[in-house]
Amino acid sequence: MKVRQIIYAAKFEGSPKESDFKIVDEDLGDQLKENEFFYEAIYISCDPYVRLLSDSYIVGKTTIPGYQLAKVLESKNPKFPSDSILVMNVGWRTGGKSDGSDVWYDRTDIPKNVPMSAGVGIFAMTGLTAYYGVNYVLKPKAGDTILVSGSAGAVGTVVGQLAKGMGCRVIGSCGSMEKIKFVKSVGFDDAFNYKTESVAEGLKRLAPKGVDLYFDNVGGSFSSAVLESMNKGGRVACCGAVSSYNSKVPAQAPVIQGTMALNSLSLQGFNIFDDIPAYADEIYVALKQWAGEGKLKQHEYLTSGFESLPSTFIGMLRGKNFGKTIVNM
Amino acid sequence: MKVRQIIYAAKFEGSPKESDFKIVDEDLGDQLKENEFFYEAIYISCDPYVRLLSDSYIVGKTTIPGYQLAKVLESKNPKFPSDSILVMNVGWRTGGKSDGSDVWYDRTDIPKNVPMSAGVGIFAMTGLTAYYGVNYVLKPKAGDTILVSGSAGAVGTVVGQLAKGMGCRVIGSCGSMEKIKFVKSVGFDDAFNYKTESVAEGLKRLAPKGVDLYFDNVGGSFSSAVLESMNKGGRVACCGAVSSYNSKVPAQAPVIQGTMALNSLSLQGFNIFDDIPAYADEIYVALKQWAGEGKLKQHEYLTSGFESLPSTFIGMLRGKNFGKTIVNM
Repeated sequence: MKVRQIIYAAKFEGSPKESDFKIVDEDLGDQLKENEFFYEAIYISCDPYVRLLSDSYIVGKTTIPGYQLAKVLESKNPKFPSDSILVMNVGWRTGGKSDGSDVWYDRTDIPKNVPMSAGVGIFAMTGLTAYYGVNYVLKPKAGDTILVSGSAGAVGTVVGQLAKGMGCRVIGSCGSMEKIKFVKSVGFDDAFNYKTESVAEGLKRLAPKGVDLYFDNVGGSFSSAVLESMNKGGRVACCGAVSSYNSKVPAQAPVIQGTMALNSLSLQGFNIFDDIPAYADEIYVALKQWAGEGKLKQHEYLTSGFESLPSTFIGMLRGKNFGKTIVNM
Repeated sequence: MKVRQIIYAAKFEGSPKESDFKIVDEDLGDQLKENEFFYEAIYISCDPYVRLLSDSYIVGKTTIPGYQLAKVLESKNPKFPSDSILVMNVGWRTGGKSDGSDVWYDRTDIPKNVPMSAGVGIFAMTGLTAYYGVNYVLKPKAGDTILVSGSAGAVGTVVGQLAKGMGCRVIGSCGSMEKIKFVKSVGFDDAFNYKTESVAEGLKRLAPKGVDLYFDNVGGSFSSAVLESMNKGGRVACCGAVSSYNSKVPAQAPVIQGTMALNSLSLQGFNIFDDIPAYADEIYVALKQWAGEGKLKQHEYLTSGFESLPSTFIGMLRGKNFGKTIVNM
């Protein structure tokens, strides 16, 4: 089987460039040992954490990390027979050979009334992250006001729908008028444009009773300002800091500890690798139910063709995407 | 009764100056209504939060806030008869008239084998804050490594003793060799001088297995660096940000959200006004037991005379104190 992968060709300095990536061909032969199988990518997920983790990559060697929805072609692994639909943590590659150890989740049972790309969206890391942050960290009750930063992004659009379904007042922040329109269509009560309105003003206008819960996708100065507007005892779910991923020097932001202490705020960081696996099965069951009842939809920004991955990724870091960024093979 | 108080005479800009304070005489007469009593200050506590809260003060009006150990002189309040020993939240004043509403805690039962100044130290806000942060937020288990910033300060010296008594490896940070010696004499396993050694180097040397728990008294850039050295799932108790209290502009520090997410760290802010009152009685019982067993001692930096309060306070913000800063009347 012949496949292509995309490797880390040059060190990211600030914003990644297309020349930091390189497509490499690979011939895997056509022999399978016991427990091995060949698979082919259907959808590849494009995620901000690719930027965050880059210090650990080896130039000229590391396959850009990422997960994909893949179909099993030929198999000597009884757990994953042909036509299995799997979420695989194998990086940016068109296909490959596996012994099953890099399978994250079996999604062969993905509901038929949902687009299959949900296998890398609401039914994979994106949905799991949103659900975990909302239900295991923030634990909203009806009537709470929740702010979602990066609300037009992959995780943000799912968080908004979940929180709305739980009876919260859901406020988003995003970077353009078009995105405000978009997140309202997704189900947010309202949103403000952080490029044209300060956090304090936006929240005063849209959350006059203050913010109880904050699902933070961006971090940095934006989040320092949010904390100032939070009600006493407020809780923050921190799933990333995309605002600082592109910084050449460590990004700086106003100190938060004074506000955290004065207002008894709590901040819980979490990530898909360490925190979610133990709950992934029960979360998937819940997500299927939400989707089955029509209360949770996948909103995606789909591009086409393996070779478009670098430009799609770069565009996503610049905020080009509406919803989950996925590349269709 | 004639008393003196110290008022906020000019707006703090950066580090407070002696001219920002003014002593004012007050004549309270000699009549008491039902439920009122006269009291006299014995010890006045000197606390960093006085700087933090200054935005809420009115120049020329506000008595500098603070609590004191006071003795009831004459009383028409059956709950607080003459000779009662009370922790009173009445600001910097030599005495006053009260209807009991500004009594924080009755400490008439303070153990005889402990210096009475413990009434504004280990048995008041300082001890309550330390105990709450350790036992209700960090919840250490034996063998955990805990870092205490501001370890030579009032709260830090109590935290160190409590954590040591619970079987932790206890590391401190402080600003001089003399303070390192001091905190080791208090019971810390070791400490590093943040002025001569980076956080990363200090922790690599003293906490080679990483930091599990962090009791944060300082915040800011120091704490951003600590988070980078914490073990996955680490917990932070955040009781202030003294490092940024003196800033004329909002202090900046490296963004922490990326690290919080990657290492699943949690940060809980808390303060003596909102979080501790509900637990104050049970914590006092515990603190008396610790002190009674000789496992908890008050370490204090005592100055003398009401009029020395401003200079003592200014010195404390500059790190002059070893342990709890108290002014003896």
